[in-house]
Amino acid sequence: MKKYLVEFIGAFFLVLAVGMAVIDPGAGSLAPIAIGATLMVMVFAGGHVSGAHYNPAVTIAVWLRGRCATADVPFYLVAQVLAAVAAAKLALLFKGCPVIAPGNPNVGHALVAEFIGTFALAYVVLNVATAKGTANNSFYGLAIGFTVVTMAFALGGISGGAFNPAVAVGITVMGLAKMSNLWIYLVGNFGAAIVAALTFKFINPDDK
Amino acid sequence: MKKYLVEFIGAFFLVLAVGMAVIDPGAGSLAPIAIGATLMVMVFAGGHVSGAHYNPAVTIAVWLRGRCATADVPFYLVAQVLAAVAAAKLALLFKGCPVIAPGNPNVGHALVAEFIGTFALAYVVLNVATAKGTANNSFYGLAIGFTVVTMAFALGGISGGAFNPAVAVGITVMGLAKMSNLWIYLVGNFGAAIVAALTFKFINPDDK
Amino acid sequence: MKKYLVEFIGAFFLVLAVGMAVIDPGAGSLAPIAIGATLMVMVFAGGHVSGAHYNPAVTIAVWLRGRCATADVPFYLVAQVLAAVAAAKLALLFKGCPVIAPGNPNVGHALVAEFIGTFALAYVVLNVATAKGTANNSFYGLAIGFTVVTMAFALGGISGGAFNPAVAVGITVMGLAKMSNLWIYLVGNFGAAIVAALTFKFINPDDK
Amino acid sequence: MKKYLVEFIGAFFLVLAVGMAVIDPGAGSLAPIAIGATLMVMVFAGGHVSGAHYNPAVTIAVWLRGRCATADVPFYLVAQVLAAVAAAKLALLFKGCPVIAPGNPNVGHALVAEFIGTFALAYVVLNVATAKGTANNSFYGLAIGFTVVTMAFALGGISGGAFNPAVAVGITVMGLAKMSNLWIYLVGNFGAAIVAALTFKFINPDDK
Repeated sequence: MKKYLVEFIGAFFLVLAVGMAVIDPGAGSLAPIAIGATLMVMVFAGGHVSGAHYNPAVTIAVWLRGRCATADVPFYLVAQVLAAVAAAKLALLFKGCPVIAPGNPNVGHALVAEFIGTFALAYVVLNVATAKGTANNSFYGLAIGFTVVTMAFALGGISGGAFNPAVAVGITVMGLAKMSNLWIYLVGNFGAAIVAALTFKFINPDDK
Repeated sequence: MKKYLVEFIGAFFLVLAVGMAVIDPGAGSLAPIAIGATLMVMVFAGGHVSGAHYNPAVTIAVWLRGRCATADVPFYLVAQVLAAVAAAKLALLFKGCPVIAPGNPNVGHALVAEFIGTFALAYVVLNVATAKGTANNSFYGLAIGFTVVTMAFALGGISGGAFNPAVAVGITVMGLAKMSNLWIYLVGNFGAAIVAALTFKFINPDDK
Repeated sequence: MKKYLVEFIGAFFLVLAVGMAVIDPGAGSLAPIAIGATLMVMVFAGGHVSGAHYNPAVTIAVWLRGRCATADVPFYLVAQVLAAVAAAKLALLFKGCPVIAPGNPNVGHALVAEFIGTFALAYVVLNVATAKGTANNSFYGLAIGFTVVTMAFALGGISGGAFNPAVAVGITVMGLAKMSNLWIYLVGNFGAAIVAALTFKFINPDDK
Repeated sequence: MKKYLVEFIGAFFLVLAVGMAVIDPGAGSLAPIAIGATLMVMVFAGGHVSGAHYNPAVTIAVWLRGRCATADVPFYLVAQVLAAVAAAKLALLFKGCPVIAPGNPNVGHALVAEFIGTFALAYVVLNVATAKGTANNSFYGLAIGFTVVTMAFALGGISGGAFNPAVAVGITVMGLAKMSNLWIYLVGNFGAAIVAALTFKFINPDDK
């Protein structure tokens, strides 16, 4: 139960940061830093309890790599998505419940961008938080959080820059993305999680 | 005595950074980074002496968690508030003693925002600076300082973004906030400190 | 093989970040942070497998210092350059294949700037990732990535700020730099790698 | 000799970063980050060889604290100042040798600002790089570099934000500061170094 609470708290603050940074008036060109730094601090705060995924795609990648109990997976996903919905509602309230025009991305480009960005994120998570070669480091939160910073700078304009199905639900609830585009995130993010887990196993053959 | 001096120095630089970043001409959209990074460096510099709270709400949270001696609490709070007043006066002097129009937040929103932002800060402090599961890390200052960066980006526009009763006193002395709103910060910040301490104990049941 | 894959992945994301940050609409004045932070996260993710060079000049510097097997060098360089070409093509696709006016730097200034910036980068890499005096640190990725941040801020306007022959190939493929200027990067970057390796040996005489 | 070379390299890149960030076209509002991050990476790269002062005031503070040999002090200072002059000349060359209007600060405010900012820097250096209570940390460069980031944001507009007599010489050579104001930096910076060393000894009574 304590693990699920930590996942809820982390995903809540992540999606709250997304909404507050992106809905006008937001953080402007600094939005990627505002969002990624939120992930960083929540990873540092909760990693020792739950692994600090805050992202269903990361949970699947860590589960495939063998560092998340199967019984925990559904509860992690539920906690992350509930937190995203709650944070989205609060962000809308703080912003005065504005009418928001959803993004209208090129579907093919968005799918590739979500795949690539989520691959980077899951690849970094697995290597800095679950590899023997980086055990006991003090940089895991910095590396994970700033992967979202960098991918949001690079690809936010292409796909909206979720890289996380819970964030995708959050931006859909807030009206920043269309419900009809939700599948782009689900396919791109979970697909990337699988490829990242396979890549991790290939480059870290001695890690069980 | 050395602990109280460290608390004074850290809170002084934190509130000076707030005043210089926020009073025109300030750091503009980069103000959250200027302020949070100041907290970061002062936490790294003073943590080994006083625990580096620089914030009465953090002192209460750490005391409830059992890592601040009861006899130290009033002296910590006095040092933090005196430092805030001194820094506020110096910032006004540097800025040419301008006439400042105080913020006029929605009281309900501001109370929720101060609660949430301070919860994040105290939750991160307790987990990165007092938990067995993160002992001997080198990231505590980064995590704590950047929690203020992220919460100032997310919630600064809602409540002014103090998350710290000493900062609330400082912005009141500088005229950035109204005296009649000071209770918002006291209630929101200390309330969040209590909830964060209870949350910490729940998710870290083996930490005494 | 796994080492070459890690080098490919890291160089791919680095050059993708360059293209997405620099080609309009990009990251504007924050481009140095977007690019350098990408290098940071990829260094933290891949350092334990390949050493995380992502840069032919760094590979030469590390090889001269005695921490890269001679047999690996050509494969590292090929992986880095192939990744740069692939990332450049993808960035052009995401940006809608725009017509780009290449930079027109002062050749002498650009050569000096590329030499100085690459010297800083190789000097930092050797000292934070291969020196006995900094063994087992948790800051190597931060130091390496932010050297690119700082040198891009300082010298990007003089030379385009590659500091990396693979990035130079990438910006040439994207049309940001002229093919006829590619030699500037090759001479400046590899020359600096040699001087940085000699400097490292002089200041760390006990490191073999 | 290797220590003096490291001091030269670090001070050279620091002053080069100052000139390139501040002389038009520079890094605009991001100049404090560009400059402080340069100090960060050079501290991480050179700390294990020379202590990575790059600042005569820091050298004096570290010498008073007993961690810099008396015989080294004059050579450190000469290396730092020579590097500042060389970097200033190169920055002017890169910028096209512009006519620069020097800053015209309020002398009293500038003196206080230089004292306070340098106190913060020397206080952080002594506590993160020479105290037993923070031994073997991985954050010293981050803390030191970002103290300059934060003090430049807070006080750069008041005094120019040198906090370093070598930087003061550099900005005087570049024409950003008037020769007739150089004493402000010398008095403010060295005075703060002394007070910071005394403060360190008071709060760390067991450190010899």
